[in-house]
Amino acid sequence: MRELDYIKYLRGFGDRPKEVLVGIGDDAAVVKWPREDLCVLTTDMLLDGTHFRLRGGRRGLVGAGLSSPQRICLWHDLRLPAATITDVGRKAITCNISDVAAMGCRATLALVAISFPTLTKMSFARRLFQAMRETALEYGVYIVGGDTISGKGPLCICVTLLGRAEGLRPVTRSGAKPGDAIMVTGRLGGSILGKHLSFEPRMNEALYLNKNYQLHSMIDISDGLSLDLGHIMEESSVGAVLYEKDIPIAEDARRLSKKTGLSPLHHALTDGEDYELLFTLNPREAERLLKDDTLKVPITLIGHIRKEKGLFLQSPEGKLSRIRPEGYEHR
Amino acid sequence: MRELDYIKYLRGFGDRPKEVLVGIGDDAAVVKWPREDLCVLTTDMLLDGTHFRLRGGRRGLVGAGLSSPQRICLWHDLRLPAATITDVGRKAITCNISDVAAMGCRATLALVAISFPTLTKMSFARRLFQAMRETALEYGVYIVGGDTISGKGPLCICVTLLGRAEGLRPVTRSGAKPGDAIMVTGRLGGSILGKHLSFEPRMNEALYLNKNYQLHSMIDISDGLSLDLGHIMEESSVGAVLYEKDIPIAEDARRLSKKTGLSPLHHALTDGEDYELLFTLNPREAERLLKDDTLKVPITLIGHIRKEKGLFLQSPEGKLSRIRPEGYEHR
Repeated sequence: MRELDYIKYLRGFGDRPKEVLVGIGDDAAVVKWPREDLCVLTTDMLLDGTHFRLRGGRRGLVGAGLSSPQRICLWHDLRLPAATITDVGRKAITCNISDVAAMGCRATLALVAISFPTLTKMSFARRLFQAMRETALEYGVYIVGGDTISGKGPLCICVTLLGRAEGLRPVTRSGAKPGDAIMVTGRLGGSILGKHLSFEPRMNEALYLNKNYQLHSMIDISDGLSLDLGHIMEESSVGAVLYEKDIPIAEDARRLSKKTGLSPLHHALTDGEDYELLFTLNPREAERLLKDDTLKVPITLIGHIRKEKGLFLQSPEGKLSRIRPEGYEHR
Repeated sequence: MRELDYIKYLRGFGDRPKEVLVGIGDDAAVVKWPREDLCVLTTDMLLDGTHFRLRGGRRGLVGAGLSSPQRICLWHDLRLPAATITDVGRKAITCNISDVAAMGCRATLALVAISFPTLTKMSFARRLFQAMRETALEYGVYIVGGDTISGKGPLCICVTLLGRAEGLRPVTRSGAKPGDAIMVTGRLGGSILGKHLSFEPRMNEALYLNKNYQLHSMIDISDGLSLDLGHIMEESSVGAVLYEKDIPIAEDARRLSKKTGLSPLHHALTDGEDYELLFTLNPREAERLLKDDTLKVPITLIGHIRKEKGLFLQSPEGKLSRIRPEGYEHR
C-alpha cells in the first residue's frame, strides 16, 4: 500500500469534534483546550511478538484478520496469545484509555502511529484503523492525527492519548496513606485466556470514583496485582497487607490454574493485563463505597496500607507472610 | 536491561517545568494547559532500516554509538545513511519539532516511546535518551512521559510532541491563494550527505514569521520541495509555478549530483528531509520580508501560486514546463 492513499482513507471519516480545528492531513493537529483544564498525557507502544502475536503470522497480514472460533491459543510460556487484527487495534486504544482512567480522568483525543511490515495490504491497514477508530469512539475518544510508516520490523503500534481532568484532581500512585483500604474493581487472574484483549477499560468507573470519593492513590493493573500494588507502595513510601481470602479470583484464573499447576490465587496476584483499577482510600470512604450500588462492576476491599514497608499476605487465620511484588514484565 | 531500571534512570533528571504536575513514572503525565491557548499535536515514528541505519547494526547497539569521522556512508540506493545513536535520538526530536514549526507554533512537551531490540544494553538506551533530552531542551521542549518496550523488531522510536499557538493562528497547508509568493528558508537538496541528521528545525524562524507576517500556508520540507509544494497545492486547490533560477541549491546537492549524475536542481526539487520551511504569502508581504534582515537563515522567493492546477517550472527564458510533484517517500 502507499502511505498517501492510506492517509486519504483516514481522512474520509467526517466526525470531527468541534474543538478539533485541524485534524489528520496537516503537519500537526490543532485543538482548542478547555479553559484551565488539566491535560493528561500517556503513550503506549505495542509490538507484534511482544504484546500480542498476530494470528497467522505474515499470513495474518495478508488474510486481513479472518475470524476464527479459536482466537486465543497458548503459546510458548503463555506469553504470546494469538490475536486478530481487530483485537490488536482494540487493545492499542483500550490499554491507553486504561492509563488515563488510572488517573481518574477522561480520555478525549488520540494520536496513532503505526509501523507496518513491508508489503502490508491496504485491507489490513484499513481493518486495523477501523478497530482503533470504533474502539476510540466507544469511549468518546477522537483520533486526531498520527503517522504511518513501513519497514522490516514487525507490526508496531504507538498510541498517544490526551485526557482531561474535568475539574477533578488526577489520582497518582503516590498518595497512599497508612490505614488506607486497598480496593480493586472486577476479578483478577488468567487474563491471558481472553481478557487481556477483550477487557473494558474502567474509565467511567474511575471518573465516578474520582468524583464521588476521596481516592488517595490509583493505578490500573497491567503488570499484575502484587507488582502494581508494589508501584503504589514505592511511590507512596508505604507497605501493604493483602487479605488472601478476599482477593477476587477470576474464573479464568481457575481454568488457567488447571493448565499451569499454579494456584488460582497465584494467578490473581501475579498475572498481568487485568486492566482493573487498584486504588486506596480512607477506610470510612471505603465503607461508604461498599454500600454504593451505582457501579455495575464489583468492587472489593482486599487489604490495607501500613507504614511498615513490604508486601504481606494475610491468611484466613490472620497469619502474615511476606511476598515479593512480582508480576508480569514484557521482555 | 530491565525496563524498570531504565525508567528509574529517566526519572533522575530534576528539571521539571512548573506546569508539569506529574511527570515520568505514573500512569500518565499531568500538565497545566495555559488558558485558552490552542494545542498543537504531532507524532512521528522512526524505524531502523527505514528512516536511518544504525551504524554497526546490532554491534551499534552494543557499542553504544562510538564516534567516527565517517558518520554518513552511502548505502544501497542512497536511502539508508548510517547514523550514530546520538544522531538518531536527535532526529527523533527535531523532525517532530519541525512539524510543529510548520504550523507556526511553539513545541513544548514530548512523549517518547521506544521499542528496543531484545538484549539492548542499558548504556545504549541511556545515550539515546540523553541525545533526545538534550535536543529537546535546546528547543525548550520537556520530555514529560513515554513508554519503553523491547522485542524482536529493529529499534523503533515514536515521539509525540505538543505545542502551543501562543495566541497566534496556526498556519495550515490549505490557505494558499492565487497570486501568493512562494518562499523557502535555507538551501535545498543533498540532505542525505548529512543535513537529514544534523538539520536545525526552523521553530524560532516559523514563530517569527507567523508573528510578523500574514502567512497563508506553510509546510516543512520532509518529502522534497516539489512533493511538499504539491501537498499545499492539493490542500489549497491551487497550482504553482517555480522559478528555476531562483531555487536555492545546497552545496551538498551539487556534491551529490557528481555521484548520481542527476542535476543539482533535480536534487533540490526532489530530495527529502531538508526540513526547511516552505510557505506562501501575499506578494507585498513577501517583499517586506525580503527586506527584513532579522532572521539569520536565508529566505528566498522561488515562485508563485496560481489558480490553474498543476506544478510548473519556469526557465530563465520564461518558458513553462509542467513537472510532476515527486519526491522522496519512505517505503
